[in-house]
Amino acid sequence: MNNSPIGVFDSGVGGLTVAREIMRQLPNESIVYFGDTARVPYGSKSKETVTKFSEQIIRFLKTKDVKAIVVACNTASAFALPEISKETDIPIIGVVDPGAYAANKTTVNGRIGIIATEGTVMSDTYAKVLKGINPELQVFSKACPLFVPLVEEGWLYDSVTYEIADRYLHDLMSYDIDTLVLGCTHYPLIRRTIQKVVGDDVTLINPAYETAKALEKVLVDNGLSAENRKAEHKFYVSDSVSKFRTFALGILPCSVDYVECVNMEQYSE
Amino acid sequence: MNNSPIGVFDSGVGGLTVAREIMRQLPNESIVYFGDTARVPYGSKSKETVTKFSEQIIRFLKTKDVKAIVVACNTASAFALPEISKETDIPIIGVVDPGAYAANKTTVNGRIGIIATEGTVMSDTYAKVLKGINPELQVFSKACPLFVPLVEEGWLYDSVTYEIADRYLHDLMSYDIDTLVLGCTHYPLIRRTIQKVVGDDVTLINPAYETAKALEKVLVDNGLSAENRKAEHKFYVSDSVSKFRTFALGILPCSVDYVECVNMEQYSE
Repeated sequence: MNNSPIGVFDSGVGGLTVAREIMRQLPNESIVYFGDTARVPYGSKSKETVTKFSEQIIRFLKTKDVKAIVVACNTASAFALPEISKETDIPIIGVVDPGAYAANKTTVNGRIGIIATEGTVMSDTYAKVLKGINPELQVFSKACPLFVPLVEEGWLYDSVTYEIADRYLHDLMSYDIDTLVLGCTHYPLIRRTIQKVVGDDVTLINPAYETAKALEKVLVDNGLSAENRKAEHKFYVSDSVSKFRTFALGILPCSVDYVECVNMEQYSE
Repeated sequence: MNNSPIGVFDSGVGGLTVAREIMRQLPNESIVYFGDTARVPYGSKSKETVTKFSEQIIRFLKTKDVKAIVVACNTASAFALPEISKETDIPIIGVVDPGAYAANKTTVNGRIGIIATEGTVMSDTYAKVLKGINPELQVFSKACPLFVPLVEEGWLYDSVTYEIADRYLHDLMSYDIDTLVLGCTHYPLIRRTIQKVVGDDVTLINPAYETAKALEKVLVDNGLSAENRKAEHKFYVSDSVSKFRTFALGILPCSVDYVECVNMEQYSE
C-alpha cells in the first residue's frame, strides 16, 4: 500500500478529463494535477519546446512526492515520453499507448482514424504504436486545430462546431474507418458532435478512460495502490488560479479547493 | 541620425502585421523582431503572466541595442505597457494608443466598437484611452477568441469564418457603431470578411498602420531616425525557427534570412 499522490499533468485544462476518469475508477487515489496554463497550448509547438516544458513539470511533480505520473496530454505523450521517462525512476504513463491498445481491440476492419493536435499528428506516434501492436492496421490521421478553441469557447453542440467537424472529418470518413481515436484531451467534450458527424458505425475511443485503466494496472503490479480512504486532490497551474478553478469545477466531480500558482522557471535545468 | 534597430515584439506571429507596416512606412529602419512562439497566445492569459513575459522580452531586446521598442501585441500593450516602460529609458510605444487616436478621429457618431482578445477586452484599456481622449465617446467591446485560430488555420475568406464573425459582431452592430477597431494584430488578415459582416458604413481601424505613423513621430521628435540606407531585419523566436519563417514569408515584403531561437528563461529576473 502507498498513499502518496499520483502526479497528472497537461498543457492546461484538457487533462482534467483524464483526472476525472482516474477519480471515477480509482477513488482512493489522491491526485496532484499540474496544468501549464501560462504556456498552453502545446499542440501547435515544436517537439523541443514541448519536451523542455514537460521535463520542468516532471521536476516540479517530483517535489510533491508522487508515486506515479500520468502524462494527461496527447502532444506531450507523443513528443516527450521517452525523454521525460529518463527524468525519474517512478512509473510514468502517457495517454497514447492506452488509446492505441483500445483502438486495436475495437477495430474490426483494421482501419483506424486519429484526430489530434498538429503536434501529435506530425509526430506520427499513434500510427507507430498501432503498427507496433499490429503491422496490418491502417492508420489515417487528421489535425483539428480549431477543436480546442471551440471547446474553450463553450460551443460544444453548435452548428458551427458541427460544420467544422464535418469539414475536418470528411477525408477520414472516405477511408472507411470503423474506429476513431479522440487523440486530444479536449475532444471528449465535443464527443456527441463528432459522433453525429461520423455516424453510429464508427466507435469513438477516449484515451482518458483507457489511461485510468492502465494506471490501475501499473499501481497494482507495483504494489503502489492506496488504501481505502478519502482521497485529497491538489491543483497547480502556471497562470491564473481563479480562471482554472472555474473551468475545473465544470469538469470534475469534486470540489477544487486547493489551487496554487507555480513559477515554472525555477524548474529549468 | 541613429542607425540602431527598432525592437518589435509580439506573442507570436501576429505582430508581423505591425512590422510590415513599419517596413512600408519607414524603409530605412532596421527591425529586431521577437515572437514569443513557445508561449503564444497571450490573449487568454492573466495580466500578471503577460506582464512577466513582456518584461523578459524587454530585457532581451535591450541586449540587441535597440533605439526604440514597439509592443506589437494588443494584449501586452493593454496589460503591461506601464510596467514594462519602467524597464527601459528608450521610447516604447504600444498599439492601443495609436489605434484609439485614429478611431476618435474617424468616428462621426461617437460610437466605437472594439474587437480583441479576451485579455484586451477584460483590461478595458481601449475604452479608458478613448474616454481619456474624449469623455463623450461610447465604446462597445467584444472578445473574439476564435478569430486567431481561424487566421492560423488559413480560413480567411471562408463561410465558417463569416458565420463566426457574424455571430461575434451581431451585438456590436446593434449598438449603431460607425467605427470598429481591429484590436488584435491577427484581425487585419480577415479584414475583408469582417468588412463584409459589418457593411461599408462602418470604418475599420487597423492599429498597425497607425502605430507605424506614431513610431515615425517618436523617432523624428527624438532625433532617432536612420539615414537613407538599406535596412536589415533580424527575427528571434522562442519556439521553432522553420515554422516561424514559413508564416513570416507569407506576410512580409522582405526575405526572412536571419531567424534565431532564444531561451527566454535566461531573461527572468
